[in-house]
Amino acid sequence: MTQGLTYRRDPGGSLLLTDLYQLSMMQAYLEDGMTEIAVFEFFVRKLPKTRGFLLCAGLGQAVDFLESARFAPDELEWLQAQGSFSQSFLDYLEQFQFAGDVHALPEGTIFFPDEPILRVTAPLPVAQMVESRLINIMQFQTLIASKAARMVLAAPGKTLIDFGLRRAHGAEAGLLAARAAYLAGFDATATVLAGQLFGIPTSGTMAHSFVQAHVSEEAAFESFARSRPDNAVLLIDTYDTEAAAHKVVALAPGLAQDGITLRGVRLDSGDMAELARRVRVILDRGGLEAVKIFASGGIDEAALQGYQRSGAPIDGFGVGTSLTTSHDAPAFDCAYKMQEYAGLARRKRSEGKATWPGRKQVLRFYDDSGCIEHDILTLEDETTATDGLIKPAMVAGKRLSDLPSLEAARTRARQELARLPEPLRSLKPDAGYPVEIARSVRDLADEVDRRTSSISN
Amino acid sequence: MTQGLTYRRDPGGSLLLTDLYQLSMMQAYLEDGMTEIAVFEFFVRKLPKTRGFLLCAGLGQAVDFLESARFAPDELEWLQAQGSFSQSFLDYLEQFQFAGDVHALPEGTIFFPDEPILRVTAPLPVAQMVESRLINIMQFQTLIASKAARMVLAAPGKTLIDFGLRRAHGAEAGLLAARAAYLAGFDATATVLAGQLFGIPTSGTMAHSFVQAHVSEEAAFESFARSRPDNAVLLIDTYDTEAAAHKVVALAPGLAQDGITLRGVRLDSGDMAELARRVRVILDRGGLEAVKIFASGGIDEAALQGYQRSGAPIDGFGVGTSLTTSHDAPAFDCAYKMQEYAGLARRKRSEGKATWPGRKQVLRFYDDSGCIEHDILTLEDETTATDGLIKPAMVAGKRLSDLPSLEAARTRARQELARLPEPLRSLKPDAGYPVEIARSVRDLADEVDRRTSSISN
Repeated sequence: MTQGLTYRRDPGGSLLLTDLYQLSMMQAYLEDGMTEIAVFEFFVRKLPKTRGFLLCAGLGQAVDFLESARFAPDELEWLQAQGSFSQSFLDYLEQFQFAGDVHALPEGTIFFPDEPILRVTAPLPVAQMVESRLINIMQFQTLIASKAARMVLAAPGKTLIDFGLRRAHGAEAGLLAARAAYLAGFDATATVLAGQLFGIPTSGTMAHSFVQAHVSEEAAFESFARSRPDNAVLLIDTYDTEAAAHKVVALAPGLAQDGITLRGVRLDSGDMAELARRVRVILDRGGLEAVKIFASGGIDEAALQGYQRSGAPIDGFGVGTSLTTSHDAPAFDCAYKMQEYAGLARRKRSEGKATWPGRKQVLRFYDDSGCIEHDILTLEDETTATDGLIKPAMVAGKRLSDLPSLEAARTRARQELARLPEPLRSLKPDAGYPVEIARSVRDLADEVDRRTSSISN
Repeated sequence: MTQGLTYRRDPGGSLLLTDLYQLSMMQAYLEDGMTEIAVFEFFVRKLPKTRGFLLCAGLGQAVDFLESARFAPDELEWLQAQGSFSQSFLDYLEQFQFAGDVHALPEGTIFFPDEPILRVTAPLPVAQMVESRLINIMQFQTLIASKAARMVLAAPGKTLIDFGLRRAHGAEAGLLAARAAYLAGFDATATVLAGQLFGIPTSGTMAHSFVQAHVSEEAAFESFARSRPDNAVLLIDTYDTEAAAHKVVALAPGLAQDGITLRGVRLDSGDMAELARRVRVILDRGGLEAVKIFASGGIDEAALQGYQRSGAPIDGFGVGTSLTTSHDAPAFDCAYKMQEYAGLARRKRSEGKATWPGRKQVLRFYDDSGCIEHDILTLEDETTATDGLIKPAMVAGKRLSDLPSLEAARTRARQELARLPEPLRSLKPDAGYPVEIARSVRDLADEVDRRTSSISN
């Protein structure tokens, strides 16, 4: 994995970032001439205990991946050297590109178990090939957007900033967590590359090491403020938080004479609600009513709700580990399953993992106040094009030109969260949201079962 | 994030994959001429409740990153356009490269809280710049290696295969989880790219969709076996597991006539211990004693221990989500902290987050049976070069030529796990491992506190 000056390729763009069985199955499909159109849908089987709803995200990267996925020459050479693959299969891979259709819930849409959030329609070997990476992309961003949405709901009016890169699971996790959190309503990220690649506002303060490296806390504060004259947030808990707040008050007039305004202070340890109250008093008495108080360190949605309820004078939060690892629920029970092949609906009947067959669509109904009330999972051919939540995203391997931007997805998420009824807004949801399985879907499942029983026994 | 035919750059190689405050602090350091040597150490503050020990991993990628980290021209242009950075700072970044020293625990070494697993010695702005990505690399692989080690201990003699790409947190997480699991003793991974990049054995079976796409289960089994004549593992739970096992028995003689030997069958749902017993009987009565039984689906270390204790005739396991997300503990409380600057030891005193100052070394002591007994955390200058566990890894920005390979790290991990005393091998550890803080470290902490009290109050 040695990198050059222009650093090496993104592993996320490699078609070898897949499970070996995808390649094994593809070869067998091709040998048997099984290249008719298959339909796969990606969905969540059931909610984690602490989730009342999910917020979908990741379609942008899924489309990027599908549009550009190709095998590189060194990858094909490596596959050939493994000895398990035929030359005709390797020739097929050399030409591989995704030319199928994709339908999906627009990013930022709320959804529930059993509702497909992405559908791939493509020749069987192609739809199979892209499974592992599609799940890898879609489940992670949806996981983080769904977690972030809980935080957004728990801290109305507060500034929320993603601080989670360091404890995210690798490079892409840090980067895409920033995107998913912003989509769900976070205000900014500390991750600079997310600023460059996605246009997300970046935000940051200073670290304890900066204070420790200086001869005194005052020297550190002054140096930092002069280096960032209109945007400095000073970290005040390295030694003694209240003493540091007094130092900030003492420094401010001299800085103001040079036109330097402090933006805020940050707390990162101790009883932060109580410290925030004391620091607020110190700052206000020192004439620094405009200086904001930020808090970080072990923040999750329960902590946010606690600060909110206690009325702690904290203006914004840096949220790290709990956000970017979705700490209480770091994975969804989700699947990408074949629903149709060669014009016939299919389903899996395995114990506890049975799926609903066919190309499905989601219809959503609202109550008089505009809140979402119930959904119906139905078959696509029973709905009109404008009825359902699932929309075309790619046609014949090309993305639709009007695919919503990240900003549009963020706007949608805000609108969707506003339409959540009270029980679903709770951090400890106890009532489920009704998703009705349409008669047509149940009938199709019975039909598939009769057909597969007759052939598989 | 549009990708070309030779796909786009790895975000993990970008120096913009950092927290904004690193850049802000660097600029301030440079403006103040604070470029003397700093020493930072990365360590875990405390163990998750369900971990008795940790297994370090990630140094290979950390060294790759440090050796090759440069700013790309488009990244510098973007930073310039943000307007927060001076031209002289941008010029500095253009020349940026890591020319510092790194000391570390060799990959595959067992360690405990407070013990540094990586130390960076470099000019302050350089050591600061690399913080976010170093933590991002080191904590994730160590997280997964530590989780995988529990599984390896819970299933002695069983084949363990990483199936976790799809639910890993993005591309790099899937790839590096495969590496960390292999390092900890897993036998193989399903992730093909991990085979190409790291030389890890790859392994895979077939999916439910393969069965569903065929006109019958028999047709699917035969097609797959003929396509992989010496290595087919057939998935037998799509419809009825025992019925499928009988089909395997019925197919085997015809395949054998064509020189095709089945390697195994896979269970993925239901009561797998009981199903494995029934399937074993069916296979054995059918003369397929050599056909192995694999299981997958919701496997974690507790499940592995349960199967082991019940004597279920399962030969190997595919382990996914619980492994690659470290599901019960998806992050460590860990930090990269300044321990020395400009020749003076430093420490952070924040409530509940105080650190031990100075360049430290770990001494390990063993009992008569060869098991590890206790460690001493001491100062490096009190030890001889060969005494301590922490070894040089990079000198002046170049990796040492004898840095252990992944295979060597895997061997080390096996030896280390063999030296774990019984209480630490438990999946529910109740006794901690003694790590003594040497008198010299405590004295240095007192000295630092006296110095910083006198200057910061």
